[in-house]
Amino acid sequence: MTGSSFEGELPLEALVGRSMGAELSPELAELLPALAEDLREIDVRLQEVLGATYPQLTEAARYACQGGGKRVRPLLMAAAHRALGAESTRSIHSLAAAFQLIHTATLVHDDVIDHAELRRGQPSVPRAFGLPTAIVTGDYLFVRAFELAAEYPRSIILRCGEACADLAEGEVLESYARFDLTTGRAHYFRVVERKTAAIVSAALASVAEIEGCAAPLVDAYAEYGRALGVAFQLRDDLLDLYGDPDLLGKPLFSDLREGNPTLVALEAHAHLPPAEKSEFERLFAIRRKQSGDLLRLKALTEEAGAPARVSDEAHRWSERAVQALAPIPSGPYRSLLEHLARAAVARQF
Amino acid sequence: MTGSSFEGELPLEALVGRSMGAELSPELAELLPALAEDLREIDVRLQEVLGATYPQLTEAARYACQGGGKRVRPLLMAAAHRALGAESTRSIHSLAAAFQLIHTATLVHDDVIDHAELRRGQPSVPRAFGLPTAIVTGDYLFVRAFELAAEYPRSIILRCGEACADLAEGEVLESYARFDLTTGRAHYFRVVERKTAAIVSAALASVAEIEGCAAPLVDAYAEYGRALGVAFQLRDDLLDLYGDPDLLGKPLFSDLREGNPTLVALEAHAHLPPAEKSEFERLFAIRRKQSGDLLRLKALTEEAGAPARVSDEAHRWSERAVQALAPIPSGPYRSLLEHLARAAVARQF
Repeated sequence: MTGSSFEGELPLEALVGRSMGAELSPELAELLPALAEDLREIDVRLQEVLGATYPQLTEAARYACQGGGKRVRPLLMAAAHRALGAESTRSIHSLAAAFQLIHTATLVHDDVIDHAELRRGQPSVPRAFGLPTAIVTGDYLFVRAFELAAEYPRSIILRCGEACADLAEGEVLESYARFDLTTGRAHYFRVVERKTAAIVSAALASVAEIEGCAAPLVDAYAEYGRALGVAFQLRDDLLDLYGDPDLLGKPLFSDLREGNPTLVALEAHAHLPPAEKSEFERLFAIRRKQSGDLLRLKALTEEAGAPARVSDEAHRWSERAVQALAPIPSGPYRSLLEHLARAAVARQF
Repeated sequence: MTGSSFEGELPLEALVGRSMGAELSPELAELLPALAEDLREIDVRLQEVLGATYPQLTEAARYACQGGGKRVRPLLMAAAHRALGAESTRSIHSLAAAFQLIHTATLVHDDVIDHAELRRGQPSVPRAFGLPTAIVTGDYLFVRAFELAAEYPRSIILRCGEACADLAEGEVLESYARFDLTTGRAHYFRVVERKTAAIVSAALASVAEIEGCAAPLVDAYAEYGRALGVAFQLRDDLLDLYGDPDLLGKPLFSDLREGNPTLVALEAHAHLPPAEKSEFERLFAIRRKQSGDLLRLKALTEEAGAPARVSDEAHRWSERAVQALAPIPSGPYRSLLEHLARAAVARQF
């Protein structure tokens, strides 16, 4: 399970448009300029806090944040805020920047752990600055994120902290399960809910809480974020096998190489006939897989019908996210959030 | 420049006693039971926050915190709090636990960066749990520290955050200076003030701020912490060459091995005659030094009179710390803080 990816430096509005998928209705397309402006302001806040007092760290930290990925989290937060009737998203800018920094910190430390060479089509931070600077830069991004979170009430800081703790636990659970196909679906979902979904869930619930919403709305966003996070990760796992490496900005098959028992791998393993199952197990266990091994694993995955099963599962989570939005006032921004949940499982990068 | 070390699992009161040095006056010895109780309660708070919801992480996090080192930071904070007239240190327990967690997080990430095998006489966290878990455990400790800091006003959280940012910048500055003897004294002190002193300074200034003290007292503690931190690090650098590895809980010469241009190395390099200076440069630059190289470097260090110079410097910083305490009300706890500043440069571990 790898993190999100980025397709190069597009103008922000074009970027927001592509994250949402191509087939945006005219009604939703009208929302783009305001959201693009939200993202720009959130980015300004993020750059401010990275500061210039620390020349060595600032360079690596800005490098880690450059491009900014698909900016899915700040986009979701801005749209969720506006769906609640907020005229301005100013009150959540620092929090959105905080969640973006936490996400980036995790990617930097992930790249250390996974020895990743590329991230968003560029040399990864450990590759560009060395391992010591990469570790410390991740720490620095976490610290700056918490400074931003400190602008909010304690309950928000704790939401943020618990999501980070979930994330850390998810990473450890994941690393202990490497090259192990016996972990099963329940373990997979435990990892994904912690590693990917918890932070999206916390980010969106925080938006509702900051806006002073009652518990049902806070819970609705928490559930939307959680389901969307799982759907997003399932799509990520599929893209690691079937995506376009140029669009993804990184090579394919990193999950297979690192021995991550993604749902695709687990479903393939569960549904292959005995002989192929043994072959799948043998190839999956190889620590340094050759291209032939990777392509054969992919072929076995298809033979087992795993991609279709996982795609169905992703769509079910995406619909669950849409259903969770029921208590949110209907209107164009709620429609946009529904669209984003569906776009998450149709995206090509 | 390596972090602090630990002499094994002693009962807490004995530990507090040893941190203070052997020659404690009867007046100061009377303060021990109350301080030992403070440290015990801070430790309870720390263990609470590590929690049990995250079984995988909790094990590694507790392992990282076990022993707890010399507990210099919480001891200083408790003594500083009581020196201000506080009857109970309860109001700073969470903050002291936070600073202890930040310190531990840094040690865990340091051990990843330095490939350290031993810490406090035990296998380091990366050695015991692997690199992925070690990186994530450090992140988790930072997160828990910030959750604890969130119990305090925003100004305290920001003090904490700035000290962490200083620390991160100090680490990067240090890592960029490896194997480089041309960096000079100013660079050395820039690293030490950020990497070691900033966090002690922030911890003590926060105690005064939480107690509602006026700026001169807050500043006095900030300066005391800063000077003590520098003195402490200078002593650490000397102990890495001249300490007892059994007392230190780790092998000697790690600074020379990692190419850290400590003040000892810089002073040796600056004061050796030309032929020996060249030899020192050549040996210092070796990436994988043999015992013979290390012993010869140590001999050259002595030939240059560097240890005595650095020891003098450490004593000057220690006295500067004592002077900084002038605005603090006189009494047994202020005397204890003075004693601790002097003990920092006389300690054997």
